[in-house]
Amino acid sequence: MVQAAALPRNETGIKTALDLLKQRFGERMQTGAAIREQHGHTTTWIETQAPDAVLFPESTEEVAEIVRVCAAHKVPVIPFGTGTSLEGHVNAPAGGVSVDMARMNRILAVNAQDLDCVVQPGVTREDLNTHLRDQGLFFPIDPGANASLGGMAATRASGTNAVRYGTMKDNVIALEAVMPDGEIIRTAQRAKKTSAGYDLTRLLVGSEGTLGLITELTLRLQGIPEAITAARCSFPSVDAASQAVMMTIQYGIPVARIELLDEVSVKAANAYSKLDLPETPLLLLEFHGSEAGAAEQAETFGAIAEEFGGSDFKATGTTEERNALWQARHDMYWASMGIRPGAKGMSTDVCVPISNLATCVTQAQARAAELGFPAPVVGHVGDGNFHMLLLIDMESAAETARAEDFIGWLNDLAISLDGTCTGEHGIGQGKMPYLAKELGPATRYMRAIKAAIDPDNIMNPGKIF
Amino acid sequence: MVQAAALPRNETGIKTALDLLKQRFGERMQTGAAIREQHGHTTTWIETQAPDAVLFPESTEEVAEIVRVCAAHKVPVIPFGTGTSLEGHVNAPAGGVSVDMARMNRILAVNAQDLDCVVQPGVTREDLNTHLRDQGLFFPIDPGANASLGGMAATRASGTNAVRYGTMKDNVIALEAVMPDGEIIRTAQRAKKTSAGYDLTRLLVGSEGTLGLITELTLRLQGIPEAITAARCSFPSVDAASQAVMMTIQYGIPVARIELLDEVSVKAANAYSKLDLPETPLLLLEFHGSEAGAAEQAETFGAIAEEFGGSDFKATGTTEERNALWQARHDMYWASMGIRPGAKGMSTDVCVPISNLATCVTQAQARAAELGFPAPVVGHVGDGNFHMLLLIDMESAAETARAEDFIGWLNDLAISLDGTCTGEHGIGQGKMPYLAKELGPATRYMRAIKAAIDPDNIMNPGKIF
Repeated sequence: MVQAAALPRNETGIKTALDLLKQRFGERMQTGAAIREQHGHTTTWIETQAPDAVLFPESTEEVAEIVRVCAAHKVPVIPFGTGTSLEGHVNAPAGGVSVDMARMNRILAVNAQDLDCVVQPGVTREDLNTHLRDQGLFFPIDPGANASLGGMAATRASGTNAVRYGTMKDNVIALEAVMPDGEIIRTAQRAKKTSAGYDLTRLLVGSEGTLGLITELTLRLQGIPEAITAARCSFPSVDAASQAVMMTIQYGIPVARIELLDEVSVKAANAYSKLDLPETPLLLLEFHGSEAGAAEQAETFGAIAEEFGGSDFKATGTTEERNALWQARHDMYWASMGIRPGAKGMSTDVCVPISNLATCVTQAQARAAELGFPAPVVGHVGDGNFHMLLLIDMESAAETARAEDFIGWLNDLAISLDGTCTGEHGIGQGKMPYLAKELGPATRYMRAIKAAIDPDNIMNPGKIF
Repeated sequence: MVQAAALPRNETGIKTALDLLKQRFGERMQTGAAIREQHGHTTTWIETQAPDAVLFPESTEEVAEIVRVCAAHKVPVIPFGTGTSLEGHVNAPAGGVSVDMARMNRILAVNAQDLDCVVQPGVTREDLNTHLRDQGLFFPIDPGANASLGGMAATRASGTNAVRYGTMKDNVIALEAVMPDGEIIRTAQRAKKTSAGYDLTRLLVGSEGTLGLITELTLRLQGIPEAITAARCSFPSVDAASQAVMMTIQYGIPVARIELLDEVSVKAANAYSKLDLPETPLLLLEFHGSEAGAAEQAETFGAIAEEFGGSDFKATGTTEERNALWQARHDMYWASMGIRPGAKGMSTDVCVPISNLATCVTQAQARAAELGFPAPVVGHVGDGNFHMLLLIDMESAAETARAEDFIGWLNDLAISLDGTCTGEHGIGQGKMPYLAKELGPATRYMRAIKAAIDPDNIMNPGKIF
């Protein structure tokens, strides 16, 4: 495990605030060790830093009350959705209170005519999609985990179908948030576009809880496509697969998903999901459209793939076959774990211009081969984003150090290829040094914004900066 | 004409800075009355407030030099693209220097494989598209005017095909900017997506020159579609047309343009463009896709339109007929002027959720009928955004007052319908009071950001706030 730096604790403030909050929230404030540990625990290699208390507000006004008490006593406030973030976002390095949004889980409005909805931050993406299905609508952002929508906005999440539908930045119309002084703001109206002042919506999206607590989201929705076609195709190399991806996108094929599994991942998938895929780089795709449109997209892709040595191309419009295909992709985490039972996974998240993707993946694979532990690759390659899952023995300081060293090297490589150290996981505690390397002087203005909006640094301190 | 408030001038600072800048820039600093007036003149009803000098930098470093001199002497800096903004954005209410980006007009890179390009801010959208055509690429944002890309980013411009391709916020990948202290920053790398820190790209997009000067833009490009089909259809009412638009979008038809002309606009178009359109509300559309795809989209729309009483539906795939159709739309400004020769146009810019569009347009038309001057409507209805062009005699104080009063009423109506006072023109000098009405407490945090980044308020003072 890796230990993030602890920050100075304001013991007096924390004690006073906890007393006041206990009076106000009673059983909806919890201080037991287990629940505190659970709220500092992330699906990550960073060690738990538990908060001093966990609060369960049920309304925006209650969130504002919590923040006002914490602001008055300079106590850290850490928002908590489902705890699936990967960079230590919910840790409490200076203590303070975790604000668990689980009870703020109401879908407040679905405006089918406008293709939007208004939800509380604790609603998960699966809950929302279940609710929407009967109306023929869906929310397209799918980061894999059944994350809360507030958390997804806070980390600027994306996932497998960002190539067509964009990331959270593209799918949040407006936010309600409680700011560090306890003020409740709305960042925009519900209209589809606006030029009214600074884009506070996009400033809060990806701010990782460091500027305010999201208490309501207005989200863009999509109509469920008439037809969905899935496809897979094997390639002789990552380079060939990347060339096919680039050509597909240049052709303007509005591919909904285009995912890469490298040979290590394919082997793992074959073993775990009892498949018989050729053990070379694989692309998994999905096309959305009318019956004719989706079929035409798949056909055009098939022709492109052939040009780049693609083989074993299979397209299917049936729900069953499609589900089987994506099940293998969704199970990749468990399949990868199967390569080295008992190991823990550390995930990288670099994202580069797509023309640099093959270079980045190939170099990463070459170097990973010397690490002494497996490192399968899966990638949202339509966006140039890929994850290497380093399967390490966390008890081994040597392995952890090699993994950390490798991640640093890969982040630097991505930055040198005009890319970023994080395509979708965020900075959190884990990537702070790389943010500075990546954006240099720009981070000074990020800090200025943070200081202006949260002068006492009570909002999720120790993250991003 | 409407006079925006003048702000206190820092005479000593301005004199000192102008002396220093003259020594450095020689003939590339101009102080003649004509050129200064031209740089304070906007295509707007707000009176000119000329800057004290106009500078023509040729590089980012030169922009930084200008800003450093102005920062040292607390002198306003106002960026200038092509002067086509509509809300007094280039006015100099406190004097200072206009920084004309005309000579920063180089296309620095086109990365066809990545569907992106890097340009200087003075490149206009038509220049860029001419340059891209041979490579089968285009930049989709079209605000009508041949604006500079820097200006389009600064005002968060959009226009006719935002319904499919989004606004400038969706099509800027990264910016280089000179900040108020003269520091040069890059807001992001060239990768398609990122979760690295605060979204300074989206903060600068739409900041109207108040936080920094954009000196370079990395933009998303699109492949020119294989087929483009245009269509038109007449409707018995604005409500019927709006219903058809909503259904089209709910069906997931990826319409590229869907524009409304009300009956007054259609009459004007018939007269100006020698057409014979039914004088009822009209929708103009464009579909992008494969040959089969674009045709299928048009056909599906035709069926939807019929359901809502649409008549005289015509679709065409030929370039000639398509151009004729859109020429009429592009000539609407001149056609409208023809309704009342000698009048000047004041444009509104409200944007509402599409389900409220018919209500908003219909109420606006009813009230406009009592104004005593014509007010044709054109609208980017796929986004719920429409413009009423108030054709007034600017010499008449009574008409100007009635127009101002009407615009205020319409902005309030849009806000009450969950919409915004500005879908794409920006706040500038003209809409400051409505920003506060629209977003209330949120504007306090906008001001805090402004004060943190530009403590001396030298960047385009008197705009937005």
